[in-house]
Amino acid sequence: MPRADAMQLDCAFRYRRYGHFLERFMKRILIIGIGAGDPDYLTMQAVKALNQADVFFVMDKGEAKAKLVALRLEIIERYVTARDYRIVEATSPERGPDNGNYLNAVETLNRDKQQVFERLIADELADGECGAFLVWGDPSLYDSTIRIVEAIAQGGQHAFDYEVISGISSVQALAAKHRVALNAIGRPVAITNGRGIAEGFPSNADSVVVMLDAQNAYRRVEHEDVDIYWGAYVGTEDEILVAGKLADVAGEIERVRAEARARHGWIMDTYLLKRRGK
Amino acid sequence: MPRADAMQLDCAFRYRRYGHFLERFMKRILIIGIGAGDPDYLTMQAVKALNQADVFFVMDKGEAKAKLVALRLEIIERYVTARDYRIVEATSPERGPDNGNYLNAVETLNRDKQQVFERLIADELADGECGAFLVWGDPSLYDSTIRIVEAIAQGGQHAFDYEVISGISSVQALAAKHRVALNAIGRPVAITNGRGIAEGFPSNADSVVVMLDAQNAYRRVEHEDVDIYWGAYVGTEDEILVAGKLADVAGEIERVRAEARARHGWIMDTYLLKRRGK
Ligand SMILES: C[S@@+](CC[C@H](N)C(=O)[O-])C[C@H]1O[C@@H](n2cnc3c(N)ncnc32)[C@H](O)[C@@H]1O
Ligand SMILES: C[S@@+](CC[C@H](N)C(=O)[O-])C[C@H]1O[C@@H](n2cnc3c(N)ncnc32)[C@H](O)[C@@H]1O
Repeated sequence: MPRADAMQLDCAFRYRRYGHFLERFMKRILIIGIGAGDPDYLTMQAVKALNQADVFFVMDKGEAKAKLVALRLEIIERYVTARDYRIVEATSPERGPDNGNYLNAVETLNRDKQQVFERLIADELADGECGAFLVWGDPSLYDSTIRIVEAIAQGGQHAFDYEVISGISSVQALAAKHRVALNAIGRPVAITNGRGIAEGFPSNADSVVVMLDAQNAYRRVEHEDVDIYWGAYVGTEDEILVAGKLADVAGEIERVRAEARARHGWIMDTYLLKRRGK
Repeated sequence: MPRADAMQLDCAFRYRRYGHFLERFMKRILIIGIGAGDPDYLTMQAVKALNQADVFFVMDKGEAKAKLVALRLEIIERYVTARDYRIVEATSPERGPDNGNYLNAVETLNRDKQQVFERLIADELADGECGAFLVWGDPSLYDSTIRIVEAIAQGGQHAFDYEVISGISSVQALAAKHRVALNAIGRPVAITNGRGIAEGFPSNADSVVVMLDAQNAYRRVEHEDVDIYWGAYVGTEDEILVAGKLADVAGEIERVRAEARARHGWIMDTYLLKRRGK
């Protein structure tokens, strides 16, 4: 655990730019990456940030995600030692039907989320207090929290400062567990979603990470000379890893995946595809 | 700091698969991501891993990198509380002249590095001991340590087990400091190097992160509708951030960059390019 004096220093540093006057009236929001599964993925910076929060906003997404909410509560309990805090649970709006337009559906969802977040910031956070959103993995990767908080800040109705704390993403956790580099020497890596890889292996990339693939889109990738490093629930006690030539293991992954999803009621999995060098 | 009993548990867990017999004779290598600058980027997992090491291998890369070596030593001193350890410094081979073939130059370098690493593992690590390499940022991104250690393991001359611990990469640190998401909603992000972006903005990407760019290659990107989020020495006390429309700030970045590099004698910078949505 960080020592109290280190935390004080940290606070002092953060506020130099506002001065003590503003500090007492400004609301603060911390967007804290908590890593993609293992509570040990938390950084020292995240632990310090957790210990600055007066309020934790815990978004509840229905029973499939109950486990992810529980892990957030576990993290708060385990790491917050310095002060009292409140927990405010709110129901996160779910994505409506897609109707063929994913972007529209996500934007509507984000507007709904923004209203929920605005209410939380307005009603549940007093002036001078610090509120924290705990984001799965890293907040900069396939997560809308930064965008939503920025939109609220720019709306100008609520005066607050906000800060983003990095977390270990599922991409990194996957690579570490498979003990594999994401990129080939001197070459790029692309991070995309199931929809992206379904359009085919990008011609200018030889390494592609795929997240948010509900459709086994790796099935559509030309198998020749492609290795896959697949992982589900990475970093948790339910972790499953499979790696090999895509042609050899695609069937096994599909089977293991379906089985795991049936058993848990939900799945989170990610994979890295690498073209073999010539 | 992690409590001692948590560390014991962690050890016990790690060894379940070898049993106590092997444990006493097998060498172990930990490849530990230490984050890209701020010692607070260390994860709890990394802190626990540091506290398992008998030997730290610290690679010295000549005076320009002295500061990065110093930061590693600072991290070891700050976080290792549980046991005695040795520090073994070794000179890391430098990349020879490129002669127009980057891949060849890097592969030669990696072979040289492999020889140094093999010597360290053979001579400086006793059976049953644990040695640690501290990797800048995340070990899975533009770093050769995993590849080299894997090559040695597959060579079969040295029996050891190895493990990779994720760290906050400069990519994430950059995004967090700029409070920006890497990807546009539902869209991919590419991570490449200066050489890669010099070939042009990938046609199938709208977000590109560029590392290892010694040539101001962002200058070659079509400026229309591209925003840049640039950062140097991110997470350190020397951090510099510049963001804006590429057309507006490219000149400023080039100036600031040249100045910083002259002042420090070296520079490490990364940037995110984002095409504006339609
Ligand atoms: C909405 S995105 C959030 C990503 C998150 N911000 C991160 O940095 O990992 C959710 C997707 O992340 C991936 N994911 C998250 N956690 C994972 C885990 N522990 N194991 C495997 N995949 C995971 C899955 O592809 C899932 O569909
Ligand atoms: C050999 S790569 C190592 C990357 C590292 N493994 C990581 O995860 O960030 C070195 C490049 O990383 C980027 N980099 C590393 N640390 C940085 C920092 N603190 N600020 C900005 N860029 C950084 C620079 O582009 C630099 O050329």
